[in-house]
Amino acid sequence: MDKLNKYKELINKELEEYLNTKISDNKIISELLGYIKDYTLRGGKRIRPLIVINAYNCFKEEDKELIKASLFIELIQTYLLIHDDIMDRDDLRRGGPTIHKIYFDIRKDVHFGNSMAILAGDLVCSFVYDSIIKLNFNDNIKVKVINEINKLLEKEIYGQIFDIFYDSGFNLNEKNILNMYSLKTAPYTSIFPLRIGAIFGEASEKDLKLFEDIGLKIGIAFQIKDDMLSIFGEEDIGKKLYNDIIEGKKTLIFIKALELSNHEDKEFLKEKYGNKLVMEDEINKIKKIFIESGSLDYCNKLSNNLLNESKELLFKNNFKKEWKI
Amino acid sequence: MDKLNKYKELINKELEEYLNTKISDNKIISELLGYIKDYTLRGGKRIRPLIVINAYNCFKEEDKELIKASLFIELIQTYLLIHDDIMDRDDLRRGGPTIHKIYFDIRKDVHFGNSMAILAGDLVCSFVYDSIIKLNFNDNIKVKVINEINKLLEKEIYGQIFDIFYDSGFNLNEKNILNMYSLKTAPYTSIFPLRIGAIFGEASEKDLKLFEDIGLKIGIAFQIKDDMLSIFGEEDIGKKLYNDIIEGKKTLIFIKALELSNHEDKEFLKEKYGNKLVMEDEINKIKKIFIESGSLDYCNKLSNNLLNESKELLFKNNFKKEWKI
Repeated sequence: MDKLNKYKELINKELEEYLNTKISDNKIISELLGYIKDYTLRGGKRIRPLIVINAYNCFKEEDKELIKASLFIELIQTYLLIHDDIMDRDDLRRGGPTIHKIYFDIRKDVHFGNSMAILAGDLVCSFVYDSIIKLNFNDNIKVKVINEINKLLEKEIYGQIFDIFYDSGFNLNEKNILNMYSLKTAPYTSIFPLRIGAIFGEASEKDLKLFEDIGLKIGIAFQIKDDMLSIFGEEDIGKKLYNDIIEGKKTLIFIKALELSNHEDKEFLKEKYGNKLVMEDEINKIKKIFIESGSLDYCNKLSNNLLNESKELLFKNNFKKEWKI
Repeated sequence: MDKLNKYKELINKELEEYLNTKISDNKIISELLGYIKDYTLRGGKRIRPLIVINAYNCFKEEDKELIKASLFIELIQTYLLIHDDIMDRDDLRRGGPTIHKIYFDIRKDVHFGNSMAILAGDLVCSFVYDSIIKLNFNDNIKVKVINEINKLLEKEIYGQIFDIFYDSGFNLNEKNILNMYSLKTAPYTSIFPLRIGAIFGEASEKDLKLFEDIGLKIGIAFQIKDDMLSIFGEEDIGKKLYNDIIEGKKTLIFIKALELSNHEDKEFLKEKYGNKLVMEDEINKIKKIFIESGSLDYCNKLSNNLLNESKELLFKNNFKKEWKI
């Protein structure tokens, strides 16, 4: 097994063990925790905890508490996604039913399903902080980490508020899209995981700032690649292929294709992208437009450049550890 | 102004100042924070922060950070109530509209209102932890306090899950009611505020245990008195008078009246208590039954005994400070 998969397995094992500590002899609670465990464990990539671990390893040698110290970010993911699922009315997540759907099915009652999912998310939120408190690190590190978690959650919640408050009719251009990625994706995907990993590693303020800059680049690159994968990837990437096309998600690859394509293709995109009834051959034509307009190439280059810049920043500052992502 | 009111005012002032620090130049966020501030500040009694302050004062002299250190418990209240309001479909709380109702009114959209209220609650949850992190106390105290907050929130969320999971048809007797008070009311109202105040005051483990025992007694007494007040109190107690009668809340005063009254009154209670269409003269008859059956007396005595026992425990253990509640 390669190193990456070994880490993923260790993270999953610790996540499961942590959630098992919460199981009580009450049937209702144990069932709920079972659903939460399922929901958490079937989400696969574990990129965020791996970033925490890598950032830590830039400053200190491996520690047996390190895997445990990276769990909080997956717990945050579970907490926020359970609540997002309610707001987005999503019945499916990571190839299984969402929490509100599971409880809806038990009583065929939307309000009951939503109520249980609100409480499930709230519960996991308390686990986020609990998983930090239980660590074998110094209290001053824990306090710093919790401070970062508070800031991260505030940012994420504000982002979600903007999402549901504005309808999607904001001005569509590359600058706005990249701005949204830097405000919404990057903090959660990379900036905070990097910062918090570095804090566990007792990094200096100067290095924390550097990791923030690097995190911004990685976060934007990650989102651009994720958008590409959701259209040109394999079926098993964890979310439904072509979902962005069906939902009309405002991604860089879409906006750039709209900008670069000829009049006829532009009209086709406007009509079919985000059309719930889009047909398979129309999806194929959209993919063709993404390629032939040069948008796919553009996104590939931009994301690779951002990743290279972040690597250079690491090297220039003498962080030469091999990253396990 | 008496000491109690002086404290209440200080707590409200600090609560307002804390929430003001979160206001940004974004209109949507600032409006939301305004609603959250309103919602928090119009809830009046401040019993829980006063308990935190009193517990602290048993161990240390007054500290200028003390008021700030007591805010978290009101923020927990706001967080949990905003989510409870969604689950209970309550449009009114503390004499004003609930958060989901405010946003429902903006768009006439239940789902939008609920989504905004989920996020508002989540946001205030991050404020709970943030208000602790920002204190000028030692990190090891903060970590201990956060650990208590995690336990408190877990307990509360489990309690709420039981509430919405079971219909209210559980076996009605004094023992069950008091058991529910000790599991659901006491931890939140008094046990944890006392414990956490004592932790801020760097109390010993032995004293923490004592405060837990005292907190249990105070919490049960508080709930019994609160039940009585919601039927025999004044109009301005912060919640609607007679609401328990209309909603059919299973309280000790009701259960005890059911147990002690004659056959005819028992049948009347069964028919009218919890009947949404109950008339004013019927409410008056219910009050009369509560008095004449001896239930009001019984509740009065029981709650006073519990308060006396808790005072005695304090005295016996040489805590002779005057309590400001």
